[in-house]
Amino acid sequence: MESPYVIGIDMGGTNTAFGIVDMRGEVLRRGAIKTQKHTDVNLYIDELYSALMEIIEEVGGIEKIKGIGMGAPNGNYYTGNIEFAPNLPWKGVIPFANMLKEKFGVPAALTNDANAAAIGEMTYGAARGMKNFIMITLGTGVGSGIVINGQLVYGHDGFAGELGHTTIVRNNGRVCGCGKTGCLETYTSATGVARTARELLEIRKDDSLLRNIPLESITSKDVFDAAVKGDAIALEIFEYTGKLLGEAFADFVAFSAPEAIVIFGGLAKSGDLIMKPVRDNMEQNLLPIWKGKVKLLFSALNEADAAVLGASALAWELK
Amino acid sequence: MESPYVIGIDMGGTNTAFGIVDMRGEVLRRGAIKTQKHTDVNLYIDELYSALMEIIEEVGGIEKIKGIGMGAPNGNYYTGNIEFAPNLPWKGVIPFANMLKEKFGVPAALTNDANAAAIGEMTYGAARGMKNFIMITLGTGVGSGIVINGQLVYGHDGFAGELGHTTIVRNNGRVCGCGKTGCLETYTSATGVARTARELLEIRKDDSLLRNIPLESITSKDVFDAAVKGDAIALEIFEYTGKLLGEAFADFVAFSAPEAIVIFGGLAKSGDLIMKPVRDNMEQNLLPIWKGKVKLLFSALNEADAAVLGASALAWELK
Repeated sequence: MESPYVIGIDMGGTNTAFGIVDMRGEVLRRGAIKTQKHTDVNLYIDELYSALMEIIEEVGGIEKIKGIGMGAPNGNYYTGNIEFAPNLPWKGVIPFANMLKEKFGVPAALTNDANAAAIGEMTYGAARGMKNFIMITLGTGVGSGIVINGQLVYGHDGFAGELGHTTIVRNNGRVCGCGKTGCLETYTSATGVARTARELLEIRKDDSLLRNIPLESITSKDVFDAAVKGDAIALEIFEYTGKLLGEAFADFVAFSAPEAIVIFGGLAKSGDLIMKPVRDNMEQNLLPIWKGKVKLLFSALNEADAAVLGASALAWELK
Repeated sequence: MESPYVIGIDMGGTNTAFGIVDMRGEVLRRGAIKTQKHTDVNLYIDELYSALMEIIEEVGGIEKIKGIGMGAPNGNYYTGNIEFAPNLPWKGVIPFANMLKEKFGVPAALTNDANAAAIGEMTYGAARGMKNFIMITLGTGVGSGIVINGQLVYGHDGFAGELGHTTIVRNNGRVCGCGKTGCLETYTSATGVARTARELLEIRKDDSLLRNIPLESITSKDVFDAAVKGDAIALEIFEYTGKLLGEAFADFVAFSAPEAIVIFGGLAKSGDLIMKPVRDNMEQNLLPIWKGKVKLLFSALNEADAAVLGASALAWELK
């Protein structure tokens, strides 16, 4: 009999969350461990194994598990390796998928977190039934997962879909952690929004609720709260962020002509504050053939479970 | 027995070229008719049929033909229609693939010319054996065909891969025929290069060989000839064109992580004059994971036959 469950593991820089998921996307069991606790990756895997086996036993043992999917920074689907991830305690190339497979005795695959989110959305969420869409995750950074012909795009080397590092400002763009300047991520991530706030508050003289907060500690959430109260500078920050995002989206559409762009993450929760300028500026920059035709959707996955669900969805495709 | 030949038809705004092609990409017979002669599309098809049947008989009759592939402006692979092509005499939606199929009694498919070029390059040319590459055609316009996982990307609606209409200049960009501003095509097509020449000659005072040509009639070929002779303004035009193209290529790489970008068309023949700045600026704007890894290749197809070969390649995949 086909095993009825999969395991999803979402490895972040701080926490590793995991869950056991059924075919309808219900998370039956949950757990988490600290990612940074062990500098020896084998000890990390040991702890993950113990924590997971406990909940695996609760659902009927490892025979019930079809496979393990993992979303991880710098995860490469083709090799199953995590390669040179700057925010993880283990350096170099770690053959994570193989290590999981050996430890648990079931198939395992990994990819990066934004790709996992795209697969999750296609399997359980807003992109169910879609063969062509682009997932954009707006968090600390800007990630993306691209689906074409029903398949995630990994490219020649497994690293395709780095749309957060396309250039949105060509001259005097902001310096990005990746070494480039002007990357979309430096403007439209949560940190990018906070950066825009600091810049605008420094060059502008008009009053703003944001001036009650120390400049260095302003977050995108503060900007949202101020915008909801009608603060002019905060509203302008959303307009600007949405403009850049909308312009970028129009270029993405010219590439793969998706049915929809699905947005996930903190910023997406700002609703129309961000979506209206995104939509307006995207439409303005689309070729006539696409005007009014590309859907902009919010993720349909419960935020707390989305990353685990996305990772788990990878496991359904395993042989 | 499997039919050994396919027909490729390249429909341009002025001429329609066609040929009979074997599996190794050899063009056994060639022909052409005027595209604009008939305002009734049925008469155009009739003339095409007569012209083609003549050479089909020479290679052994229609039983030898596996299918017909056509590259045409605004050709939609999914529907087989030519839809609202501004430079063709027939307005609205023309079900061209079906009309060919009925007339000739063999399977037929069509796509736009840049997509056909990509399939041609993958079947007979510089991208043989590649599963992930991007074809860029630099002609009167800038076209593109994107191959991912060995398949051409058509997107949700069949119109994917309009990279010539991604935005390369965001503020005060040039007006494009598509209705947008700042499109890559307005700077890096042959006409874009001539436009740059006119702009530069007007704002600059220094001497140039290009000043011997009436401003309105300067072509990209003139710029090339002047650059080869060491003309400073002409060289600057190539630098500028290559810079924009290289920056755009870096963003394309971030999307689909191709093994190579294959360039075709008049400008590509300028060799290092254009390729050096393209390469330098692409490399400078790539994420570290891709630096030094993405090949820039010239088309390996004989230019006179390339469009027909590309169209013909489509027919090998027909069922």
